[in-house]
Amino acid sequence: MNENVVPDIVIERLPWYLQALNQMAKEGLHTISSQRFAERLGSTGAQIRKDLSYFGGFGKQGTGYSIYFLIEQLQKILNLDRIWRVVIIGAGGLGSALTRYQGFANRGIEIALLYDIHPQVVGTKVGSLIVSHADSMIADIREKAIKIAILTLPGDAAQATADKLVTAGIQAILNYTPVTLKVPEGVHVQNIDPVLQLQRMMFYLGDD
Amino acid sequence: MNENVVPDIVIERLPWYLQALNQMAKEGLHTISSQRFAERLGSTGAQIRKDLSYFGGFGKQGTGYSIYFLIEQLQKILNLDRIWRVVIIGAGGLGSALTRYQGFANRGIEIALLYDIHPQVVGTKVGSLIVSHADSMIADIREKAIKIAILTLPGDAAQATADKLVTAGIQAILNYTPVTLKVPEGVHVQNIDPVLQLQRMMFYLGDD
Repeated sequence: MNENVVPDIVIERLPWYLQALNQMAKEGLHTISSQRFAERLGSTGAQIRKDLSYFGGFGKQGTGYSIYFLIEQLQKILNLDRIWRVVIIGAGGLGSALTRYQGFANRGIEIALLYDIHPQVVGTKVGSLIVSHADSMIADIREKAIKIAILTLPGDAAQATADKLVTAGIQAILNYTPVTLKVPEGVHVQNIDPVLQLQRMMFYLGDD
Repeated sequence: MNENVVPDIVIERLPWYLQALNQMAKEGLHTISSQRFAERLGSTGAQIRKDLSYFGGFGKQGTGYSIYFLIEQLQKILNLDRIWRVVIIGAGGLGSALTRYQGFANRGIEIALLYDIHPQVVGTKVGSLIVSHADSMIADIREKAIKIAILTLPGDAAQATADKLVTAGIQAILNYTPVTLKVPEGVHVQNIDPVLQLQRMMFYLGDD
């Protein structure tokens, strides 16, 4: 599969499909039509069929999708058939909550390292991790060949930290800060600023 | 402006444009070409021009966009020219961190109420709020006519809580739980599950 031919927007929808499929599997369903699948997602059957067609389709005319098969295929496509180690930079309220978050481990994500720069925080325990000083960040990430970082530090330190992470070999950054990060080509950033997500909905709330 | 004619995906990009524009304004810039704007966002000039054309354009051939004017227009379009009150359901680590989050107030969001059901949490202070018992949630939200909720409770309580929120008049839910919520038409949900956002990037990390 050539990642260049699949539009980013299609990739963005796949984890969302996977989540819904996992939920259907939990409910005891075995197959689902693209139409019913679309209804659950507030999408359209045509959209789902088109998105999945980039990877070969997976549905059978008349019988719909096998939920377990589709889960397995999406996990392979998204490289979720392995454990990904992740570093968190910033051990404040949000960084600590994420380190303790139970939803990572059972979905293939291991928080491997947690960093801060404040003397009163470095060395303390958060969940099962000890907070490390950011001074050792680059060396640690290189040594462990970690590719994914979560940024939960104050915005004014975000760009400088992102630069260091890229130097260390990080290729994907989940950015909780309100800063638009500049990164070299080939490094991926997902912004998870709650304000942006709230603003997307406010458009629809204005007129009553 | 008829919201039905603007694709959701365009609306999704506007807060991101606004964020980048605010950052440019902070850097002292006054105008920007769609090309340079696109470079900062890793987008294309054509995409930005097309997105903004739904609202009338705003750019002048040859001189580009006036940053302050565009900020003002986007704020109006997104209904950000007011204060939005928001309730948070779930006063655990994440809910507490969000309640204390400094990035809301200066971007028009006021966390008005915080709920939990655990006796050891209800009545405690988080930031400047006292945690209320979820029993009073529906009545409070109705009385204050709040339209936006943030869900930071365990996934197994998410759907039942969302149903109650909709009954109370909530029209927009920022969903931090890993559950795909079913809501009536006209109610908007944004999923902010960090796992989904991480999974979107893992696709690109697989092959080395």
